[in-house]
Amino acid sequence: MKDDTVGIACDWGTSNLRVYRLGPNAKIIEKRDFSAGITAIKNRKFEDTFMKATQDWLHEYADVPITISGMAGSRQGWKEAPYLPCPTNVLTIANNLTPIRLRSGRIVWLTPGLSYTNSDGLPDVMRGEEVQILGALSTINSEKITICLPGSHSKWATVVGEDVTEFNTYITGELFEAIKSHTIVGAMIDPNSWDEKAFIEGIEFSASTNNILNQLFAVRAKGLFNQLTTATAGAFLSGLLIGHELEAALAGARFRKVYLIGHGQLTNLYHTTLLEKGFDPKILTPDIIANGHFKLMKTIERNVS
Amino acid sequence: MKDDTVGIACDWGTSNLRVYRLGPNAKIIEKRDFSAGITAIKNRKFEDTFMKATQDWLHEYADVPITISGMAGSRQGWKEAPYLPCPTNVLTIANNLTPIRLRSGRIVWLTPGLSYTNSDGLPDVMRGEEVQILGALSTINSEKITICLPGSHSKWATVVGEDVTEFNTYITGELFEAIKSHTIVGAMIDPNSWDEKAFIEGIEFSASTNNILNQLFAVRAKGLFNQLTTATAGAFLSGLLIGHELEAALAGARFRKVYLIGHGQLTNLYHTTLLEKGFDPKILTPDIIANGHFKLMKTIERNVS
Repeated sequence: MKDDTVGIACDWGTSNLRVYRLGPNAKIIEKRDFSAGITAIKNRKFEDTFMKATQDWLHEYADVPITISGMAGSRQGWKEAPYLPCPTNVLTIANNLTPIRLRSGRIVWLTPGLSYTNSDGLPDVMRGEEVQILGALSTINSEKITICLPGSHSKWATVVGEDVTEFNTYITGELFEAIKSHTIVGAMIDPNSWDEKAFIEGIEFSASTNNILNQLFAVRAKGLFNQLTTATAGAFLSGLLIGHELEAALAGARFRKVYLIGHGQLTNLYHTTLLEKGFDPKILTPDIIANGHFKLMKTIERNVS
Repeated sequence: MKDDTVGIACDWGTSNLRVYRLGPNAKIIEKRDFSAGITAIKNRKFEDTFMKATQDWLHEYADVPITISGMAGSRQGWKEAPYLPCPTNVLTIANNLTPIRLRSGRIVWLTPGLSYTNSDGLPDVMRGEEVQILGALSTINSEKITICLPGSHSKWATVVGEDVTEFNTYITGELFEAIKSHTIVGAMIDPNSWDEKAFIEGIEFSASTNNILNQLFAVRAKGLFNQLTTATAGAFLSGLLIGHELEAALAGARFRKVYLIGHGQLTNLYHTTLLEKGFDPKILTPDIIANGHFKLMKTIERNVS
């Protein structure tokens, strides 16, 4: 049965494959979620996996554009889609899509990742988040926007007008896991416990002038003096690390509004931390990526026609 | 055969047990080293292990004092010797030794650990290093001294006159291992490679104003852009972390001289980093601990007689 489907979008990350069937105005008509991130794909069977996820849609909607974002475009993915340097915008991204011809002859379009080199000459990269950011822009009316995407490698992006002007990645989430599972600080953490008060204390602790390498040992010492317990140490450590991230990401910020794209526990922790530091956070769902893909599809169509 | 042995000293840490037979002026007449740190001791057989290491000495030198420093005095060790708060000095340490009576009736003396609470109210602890510091003091003629003891938890202590006034611990070494073995940054490191130039670049990198959580991701991004390779990334990461530690430990320092107590590769890295940052480092051997034990023995004798 035909309906008003206008495109097929795919968010293919390290751990998950999500496909969206989109209608007018980026409406999500149908969404499918698979535990088939690129690290789970054996023998480079990317096309087979993609076909399995979308076969009926491809058949039914033979003429709509197909866009794919995320790690599928990395060197380890389906095909490498080069990084596009910031500042950049939706038009430039749409003009730098990498085509893949399916065995059926149909074309799918891989989005580029973004790169950014800061004033110290440090490179940074993102893949997939840029389409979420494009999506968020279509729902926000502001000249300058700060967007945070919590994750094991969380991203902080600045958008001015239509341009993603800069972004920075923080390895906070992955470092938290490494510390928790593989250090003496982690040895005092009960992974099944959480304590909101200790989390807030960790945020406050992060604002002290001490170096993080010293503070991490202080977490251990607090355990020895019963200022932290196995039940509270994990939340405290989490607050400490996220607090440090926000301290750096928002240094000198003159605005209060921050958009978070994410869901679940981790995003809630960022929300709490932002409130604690006096900011005004607003959470957007990751499905906002549908709006980003929709924008790209419209741009492709405009360029082609 | 009797000789001029004046005491038996023992440095009993997490991984190693070292025993020293000392002569006048802290001369090391004989040293024995065992892979019998406290974590290797089963069923609390501390006395048996100690006896095995020193039996002939105990028999031969029935009247000399015996002192033991390090993790043997921790809660997980032979017997808990409480932490002594800083500022403190050799006399206070000697007055706070914890006696253990051996089955033979003879007494051995466990040294206390030290604790320090900084101006932010953060606690810190050391065990064993304090006797190395006492030892170092006997060879240095200066009113104010900065001592660094590199290790998986490196210690920075300040000594004014006879007093250890403050110290701070940095978890740098253990964090380096956790990052190397359990993160995406570590995945790009060949553990068998080392590159001195990359280490120096890592030190320089640490001095930029960016947050360490962001810089750790930059190490990864540098790999993507071939600015780092599997052969250079490990040394770069090491320079970055040690550089951050020194940046914090020596913030605002008006002196240039820094004493390092340690040996081997890690101590050499701290030496290089201190030179790179314009300091004047001097390396002292860990056996300097013999001087510290000797001082304690002399103080005990003076107090007893």
